[in-house]
Amino acid sequence: MATAKLWNDEEVSKDPRVKQVFEDIRATRKSEFVNNFWRALANQPALLEQTWSSIKAVMIAPGALDPLTKELIYIAISTVNSCSYCVHSHTAAARAKGLTEEQHGEFLAVVAMASETNALATALQIPVDAEFSV
Amino acid sequence: MATAKLWNDEEVSKDPRVKQVFEDIRATRKSEFVNNFWRALANQPALLEQTWSSIKAVMIAPGALDPLTKELIYIAISTVNSCSYCVHSHTAAARAKGLTEEQHGEFLAVVAMASETNALATALQIPVDAEFSV
Amino acid sequence: MATAKLWNDEEVSKDPRVKQVFEDIRATRKSEFVNNFWRALANQPALLEQTWSSIKAVMIAPGALDPLTKELIYIAISTVNSCSYCVHSHTAAARAKGLTEEQHGEFLAVVAMASETNALATALQIPVDAEFSV
Amino acid sequence: MATAKLWNDEEVSKDPRVKQVFEDIRATRKSEFVNNFWRALANQPALLEQTWSSIKAVMIAPGALDPLTKELIYIAISTVNSCSYCVHSHTAAARAKGLTEEQHGEFLAVVAMASETNALATALQIPVDAEFSV
Amino acid sequence: MATAKLWNDEEVSKDPRVKQVFEDIRATRKSEFVNNFWRALANQPALLEQTWSSIKAVMIAPGALDPLTKELIYIAISTVNSCSYCVHSHTAAARAKGLTEEQHGEFLAVVAMASETNALATALQIPVDAEFSV
Amino acid sequence: MATAKLWNDEEVSKDPRVKQVFEDIRATRKSEFVNNFWRALANQPALLEQTWSSIKAVMIAPGALDPLTKELIYIAISTVNSCSYCVHSHTAAARAKGLTEEQHGEFLAVVAMASETNALATALQIPVDAEFSV
Repeated sequence: MATAKLWNDEEVSKDPRVKQVFEDIRATRKSEFVNNFWRALANQPALLEQTWSSIKAVMIAPGALDPLTKELIYIAISTVNSCSYCVHSHTAAARAKGLTEEQHGEFLAVVAMASETNALATALQIPVDAEFSV
Repeated sequence: MATAKLWNDEEVSKDPRVKQVFEDIRATRKSEFVNNFWRALANQPALLEQTWSSIKAVMIAPGALDPLTKELIYIAISTVNSCSYCVHSHTAAARAKGLTEEQHGEFLAVVAMASETNALATALQIPVDAEFSV
Repeated sequence: MATAKLWNDEEVSKDPRVKQVFEDIRATRKSEFVNNFWRALANQPALLEQTWSSIKAVMIAPGALDPLTKELIYIAISTVNSCSYCVHSHTAAARAKGLTEEQHGEFLAVVAMASETNALATALQIPVDAEFSV
Repeated sequence: MATAKLWNDEEVSKDPRVKQVFEDIRATRKSEFVNNFWRALANQPALLEQTWSSIKAVMIAPGALDPLTKELIYIAISTVNSCSYCVHSHTAAARAKGLTEEQHGEFLAVVAMASETNALATALQIPVDAEFSV
Repeated sequence: MATAKLWNDEEVSKDPRVKQVFEDIRATRKSEFVNNFWRALANQPALLEQTWSSIKAVMIAPGALDPLTKELIYIAISTVNSCSYCVHSHTAAARAKGLTEEQHGEFLAVVAMASETNALATALQIPVDAEFSV
Repeated sequence: MATAKLWNDEEVSKDPRVKQVFEDIRATRKSEFVNNFWRALANQPALLEQTWSSIKAVMIAPGALDPLTKELIYIAISTVNSCSYCVHSHTAAARAKGLTEEQHGEFLAVVAMASETNALATALQIPVDAEFSV
């Protein structure tokens, strides 16, 4: 269960600000499905608008990194933050963008390797080498 | 300061197991520089061998993801784990592998966006949509 | 499912130390409902007594911060720790103490903003300005 | 050291987009001091503009929560994320907004209490009570 | 639900690499039960082999720390990482290795204490004493 | 630098509550050295008293787990929380209680292993096996 109400389509249709964001989500993604994240944010129209606007700019607009790479970065962050919802939604998004089993395996190996060496570097409190300076 | 001794080259030269790993690091990276991470792990030869062997297999051997993508995933993990050493070493590695300012900017935007929506999804305890199932 | 037994009221009634804490929880909160957190801690009477005593002193006794502010700080901590139980229980507590939808929206915006800038500051390893010294 | 260049005032003056944000920061805060966070973000003008714009809207514009409460939530998030820079900058901001020693002590007590019970609830994997549903 | 398929025994029997690891898990543990962690990793045979090999070396082979101590360290890490699966599996493993209620209570008290003082030390950004140097 | 003043011995001597705690720390530990953690907490006498009292009860009083095991659990928690101060102070404490290089190496291997499998279990969102129920 959520800590806030999830808005159904009828409730969405009655609030002009929320309705407009939902229509843009559907038009941008070319799909009728709007996932629960947006239905929970609907309680806060200003936050809903700002978050969707950022997601469009960062994750959907073309840029210097390809869309699949951006999803993998997103899943990596979500994994360490232990955000179950986000791991699910962005793994689904990565698969929709062509993630292969082989790529997923290599991604998992990098995530595991980084988590392991992060813990070692922190437990050993290793000082940063001067060679890494910008 | 570290919580364990950092081995200098003379100390390394006197321990055959550690010496062999350091030689392989230098040969594999085609560089005399060996960073502090390995000098701290030298206190634990078995862990040193296993960690270097994994790093070679996961980060250096060719695979399904390109080397720069793997470094970005590594920095993402290190950022959320707040591993200062790892953020430094892998940002340096990413730059050495060709990371542009534009790509770094887009990477930072994805990291910021994911961190933000992770917090929102967790604070709202949003239930996973059935549509995300495998 | 929990990793320890949740004590029901009959089991509580048979252990004098646990029984006394449960009676104090009910008397202090003026409610018969005792949530699962305490039913799980009941396996460890000393920890149960110490934790309830601290909660009473920190969260219930009057102090320099108002009760709603303290609940918001609690939810913020629980969100980053990804403690699902704690996010639920303290969001419920905040609502019971008068949290409005507008305040919840602003709280979520601050949580999102802080999470985003935390990630940026860590990924960029920004040095602390001398101006921030005490 | 940072993983990106910190822009000094002369460099800022040569980039119109960065210059405009820095002028707005100075005008909004009524202070010449611009802290390192913005000097590091200056490498990424789009991210700089978006982040400053969000900070203004969330942290500076009047809202449903008072400014000091918002700073305390910010420090709480930054603490769990172990963001040294953010803990420093927002503790300084909170003091500038009137945080007393007594309030700081109570804030610390709540942060400690929440961290402790978060760990207990997670280690015990306590199921969410139905009573907490929205 | 998982983000990858969980392999059942029939599927396992058809993949020689996966089959071999599962047989070794059963032989090593002297039990027919193979938990979901390995059934999910089966999608990535190389990662499955490497992870099982590490677990055997670190957690099962005799060493300088006793098996129960290693399980408690594992649960501590899993708790802060908010890994629900891992807290469950390693608390079950610790009980199987003889963890008493009294030891569990003391473990929980240490976990709570450390979480509390970690938060205080980070919120106060306490400088490391020179006396702690190696 | 800290976000609060660190009290020197002269300042401590002028506050009866703080003075009493410092005397008990010195008497309990049989050492004149009082580390910065307590000098920062001195700003908040109630929190200082409560924290020292808990540390004495949990970490110093004899119990069901041996003192070195408790220090290892403490370092594990501090590592994942990326608490630099706590990793330093409790690694020093563990060495003072007899931690050998071999034990430290095995501890690090468990920490690395747990961090790795935590990340894998979370990225794969593996459902908890019914066999792990209490």
